[in-house]
Amino acid sequence: MEQRISLITLGVADVAASRDFYERLGWNCSLFVEDTAFFQAGGLIVTLWGRDKLAEDMSVADSGGWGGIGLAHNVRSRDEVDAVIEEARAAGARVTKAPADTFYGGYAGGFTDPDGHAWEIAYNPGFPIAPDGSISLPD
Amino acid sequence: MEQRISLITLGVADVAASRDFYERLGWNCSLFVEDTAFFQAGGLIVTLWGRDKLAEDMSVADSGGWGGIGLAHNVRSRDEVDAVIEEARAAGARVTKAPADTFYGGYAGGFTDPDGHAWEIAYNPGFPIAPDGSISLPD
Repeated sequence: MEQRISLITLGVADVAASRDFYERLGWNCSLFVEDTAFFQAGGLIVTLWGRDKLAEDMSVADSGGWGGIGLAHNVRSRDEVDAVIEEARAAGARVTKAPADTFYGGYAGGFTDPDGHAWEIAYNPGFPIAPDGSISLPD
Repeated sequence: MEQRISLITLGVADVAASRDFYERLGWNCSLFVEDTAFFQAGGLIVTLWGRDKLAEDMSVADSGGWGGIGLAHNVRSRDEVDAVIEEARAAGARVTKAPADTFYGGYAGGFTDPDGHAWEIAYNPGFPIAPDGSISLPD
């Protein structure tokens, strides 16, 4: 199995409402078919799909709630952390963590989207971000 | 907010055991610090971290179970779907979906990792995969 992820699908209650939320954050849905929204995100695809359909398709039991996965969006400065957290608040996110210094010498805040999916917005000076947005572990 | 994901953190019960599982699948952990395992996966980073620490760090309530996120690893042929599902089974995954044709003209199977994180292994002829493993929506 190659070391990569192709798609991340966020199961949501209302695909159109969730698409609107991510578009308020500045994302662009480039494909919408079969009540599924697809966003190109660098070399992978972020998908919004009905949570019930996703659970059925993946043959997993869904007890509701958060499931132990965190998504992080790293940025290039502390100011950008503050700015994205405010964009998320304005878009209707629930800010779960006000931006603050982190133990690793960075700065991060967090929010949950309308379906409770948890995002961290982080500045981590140890993990460089390329001009195309890709991120790398230190050598 | 730029349209990208930097890190995906899978909250796990036992970081060392989970790292061993992904290494049995053929992945290579290139950084292990503070009981956290980091894998470079194309332009993003996959992280294994204690689920309790992740919930606390993201300020979310954890009721346990699956949380409505699916991860997909797309491959270039039907045979490769079968091969990766068998690799996963041999590595200790629970195969939740035997490979089968999909409604979109592809072929996919699924498994859950030792912590219940759900992976789909898919061949989708409509979403091209570049030599570097990155995937693109159709034009």
